Amino acid sequence: MAKRKLAILGCTGSIGTTTLGLVDRFRDRFSVTSLAGGRNIDRLAEQVRGFEPSIVATADEQGAERLRALVPDFAGDIVAGPEGLVRVATADADLLISALVGALGLRPTLSAIEAGTDVALANKEVLVVAGELMKRSADAAGVRVYPLDSEHNAIFQAMHGQNRDEVKRIILTASGGPFLHTSREELESVTLQQALQHPTWKMGDKITIDSSTLMNKGLEVIEAFWFFDVPLDDIDVVIHPQSIVHSMVEYIDGSVIAQLGIPDMAVPISYILGYPERLPLSHLPSLDLVQAGKLEFHAPDTDRFPCLRLAYDALRARGTASAVLNGANEVAVASFLEGKISYLDIPRILEGVLEEHPAVDRPDLSQLLDADRWSRQRATEKTRG
Amino acid sequence: MAKRKLAILGCTGSIGTTTLGLVDRFRDRFSVTSLAGGRNIDRLAEQVRGFEPSIVATADEQGAERLRALVPDFAGDIVAGPEGLVRVATADADLLISALVGALGLRPTLSAIEAGTDVALANKEVLVVAGELMKRSADAAGVRVYPLDSEHNAIFQAMHGQNRDEVKRIILTASGGPFLHTSREELESVTLQQALQHPTWKMGDKITIDSSTLMNKGLEVIEAFWFFDVPLDDIDVVIHPQSIVHSMVEYIDGSVIAQLGIPDMAVPISYILGYPERLPLSHLPSLDLVQAGKLEFHAPDTDRFPCLRLAYDALRARGTASAVLNGANEVAVASFLEGKISYLDIPRILEGVLEEHPAVDRPDLSQLLDADRWSRQRATEKTRG
Repeated sequence: MAKRKLAILGCTGSIGTTTLGLVDRFRDRFSVTSLAGGRNIDRLAEQVRGFEPSIVATADEQGAERLRALVPDFAGDIVAGPEGLVRVATADADLLISALVGALGLRPTLSAIEAGTDVALANKEVLVVAGELMKRSADAAGVRVYPLDSEHNAIFQAMHGQNRDEVKRIILTASGGPFLHTSREELESVTLQQALQHPTWKMGDKITIDSSTLMNKGLEVIEAFWFFDVPLDDIDVVIHPQSIVHSMVEYIDGSVIAQLGIPDMAVPISYILGYPERLPLSHLPSLDLVQAGKLEFHAPDTDRFPCLRLAYDALRARGTASAVLNGANEVAVASFLEGKISYLDIPRILEGVLEEHPAVDRPDLSQLLDADRWSRQRATEKTRG
Repeated sequence: MAKRKLAILGCTGSIGTTTLGLVDRFRDRFSVTSLAGGRNIDRLAEQVRGFEPSIVATADEQGAERLRALVPDFAGDIVAGPEGLVRVATADADLLISALVGALGLRPTLSAIEAGTDVALANKEVLVVAGELMKRSADAAGVRVYPLDSEHNAIFQAMHGQNRDEVKRIILTASGGPFLHTSREELESVTLQQALQHPTWKMGDKITIDSSTLMNKGLEVIEAFWFFDVPLDDIDVVIHPQSIVHSMVEYIDGSVIAQLGIPDMAVPISYILGYPERLPLSHLPSLDLVQAGKLEFHAPDTDRFPCLRLAYDALRARGTASAVLNGANEVAVASFLEGKISYLDIPRILEGVLEEHPAVDRPDLSQLLDADRWSRQRATEKTRG
C-alpha cells in the first residue's frame, strides 16, 4: 500500500503536532510532503528533521533564515510568507491538513482545492468566512473537504455508510461553557477569569471565550451547513456539559446515530488520516461511561446567548454576512480579553456590525476578505464606544 | 422496484403486529407471502383479509377450522401445527420475520435458513439455544440473519458501513430493571409485584422478570456473540436505566458509535425491513434528549445479579450449555411467577442445573431439543425442593 502523502498548514500548532504524532506512530501509512509552521521555529526545525518534507514554509523571511541555520543539511525548499503557504498547500500531497488559525488559511486552502487536493479542515474560518466559495470550488474540482474538529468529525462518522437523503437533522453538542446556569443579569458582570474557565476541553483563550458565548457553536453551525449540505433548519444545537457525545445525526426512521469518545483530538484526526479505515489508537484509554457518570442535555438559551442566534441569522443572510460576523467577533473577543469591553458587549457589538453591513451576494475571495476587514474596523470603532 | 416479500412467524404477537403495521404503511414496498399466528384467530383472520398471504398457519387444527370459517373466501392454504410453521417459513419470501416465542421457532427458522431465505430474528431462543447450529447453517446457505430487538439492532446499525475487523468491543445496554439499587439482602425477599415493575419498556411477565434478574441481558450477550462474531470477552454490558442509548460499538480508534431512540419497536423492525434503506417513520416523535434529561451508566453487579455471569459461563462452555440455561430459566421464572419459589431461587436453580448438565459438543437440533427438555425437567424437580 502506497503511503498517504500529507501537506500540513499549521504544523506547529495543536492540530499539527497531534497529526505529526500520528504520522510518527504510523510511519508505514503516512509521509509528509510539506509543512507550514508559525513562529515556533525550534519546533518546526525538529519536525523538518523528523519527517523530511520537501517544502517548508515559515511565517516570514526572518523565520526562514533561522530555520535554514537550524537545519543546514535540509535539501528541500524553505519558503516564507503567504506565497509559502500556497506552495505548501499545493505541493504533491494526497491530503492537506488545513490547520492555520484565522483568515490566513483561506487562500492556501482554496489553492489546494483548486489543485485537486482533498482537504482535512480544522481552520474554522475557511468555511465560516468562505463556505459558499469553498463548496463551489470543491464541487467543481471534485475534491472532498473532511472535518477534523470533534463535533463535525462525529457527524461525519455518524453519516458514514448512510444514505444522505435519509438524514432528518444534525444535532451538534455544545459543552455550554462556564455560564450554562448563569442568569442574564449576572452575565452583565462576569469577569475575564470566569469566562476562561472551560469545564471540559483545554483550549486557547479566544476559543474558550467563544465557547462561553456559544459563538463557537454558532460558527460550527455555519461549518456544519457547508460540510454536510443539510438545510439550516435541520441543524440543531443541544447543550451537553460532559462533552462525551461529540455530536449526533437523526435519520428519517427516528434512529439517532451518535459518536462518543474521550476528549482527545487524536481520535478525529486519525479518523480522517486513515479514512475509510480506522487507525488502532491502542495508546489511548477506552471511553469509560460508568466513570463518566451522567450525561446531561439542555436546550440552548439564545436569550442569554444571542451569539448562537446571530450565527443562524448570518448564515441565512448568506453572502458576506458570516465573514462579517466572524471578523467582528474576533475583534470583540480580543477587546474583552484586553479588558476593554464587558462580556455582554460582545453580542451587542456583533449585532450592531451585522445590522450595518452592506450585503454582497456570491462574493469572491477578495470580496470576502474586504468584508472581513470592514467588519474588524467597524467592530474596533464600536469597542471604543 | 419489486416489493419485498415477507413470511412472518408469530404474526399476531407484538413484533408481528408491529411488522404488519409497517407493511400497511408501506404497501408499495412490501407484500406478505405467509403468516403463522397463535391462538388469537380473530386477529389472524383480520390479517389474512388485510394482507392476502398465500399460506397461513395456526397453532392447531381447531384454530385452522375456526379461521376457515372466518375467511370463507380465502383462496390460499390454511395449515396447522409445527409442519404448518415450516410451510410458512419456507414459503417463497425474501425475508422471514422469526418472531415466535420459545423453542417452537427453532425448526421453522432453521428450515428457512436452509432454504436460502434471509431471517429477521426476534425469537431469542433461536440463537440462545441453537446459535452455533444456526450460524453454521446460515454460513453454509449464504443467508443473513438480522437482529430485530432494539439492542442488537442498535449494534447492527452502529456497525453498518464499518470495517468489522476494526471493532474493539460491543457495549450492550441494560435498563437494570427495578432492582438496580436493591441490596443482595433485600433481593432475598422481593415480591412478584415488585419484580414486575419494569421502569421503561412494557413487556410480558417472563421477559420483565428476566430483565430484573439481568438474565435477559445474559441471553442477549449470547445472541450478540452469534450475531456479530465478536470474542465473548469483547462483549460488555452497561446498565443504562433510561433505555435511550440502545447499545454501542467501540472501535480500535476509541470512537464509540451508538444508536439512540425512542422506545418503539417500529424503529428497529423498520430498519431491517427496509435495509439498507431507512423507512420514513414520520408518525413517530423525534427523540427529545432535553426532555429525556440525564443518561446514566452503571457497571452491572454480577454478585447481586448472578444470571448475567451464568450466561457468560454457559456461552464459554459452548455445546448445549446455553440451551440448558435457557430451558431451566423458563421453568424457574414460571415457578416464581406462580409463587412457588423465591426471587433468588431463580439463579440458584440455574446454577445447579448448569453444574449437573452433561455437555454435548457441536449438537444437532434434536440434541439441543433434548438438552432443553432435560434442563426443564431438572429445573422443575429443583423448584420442588
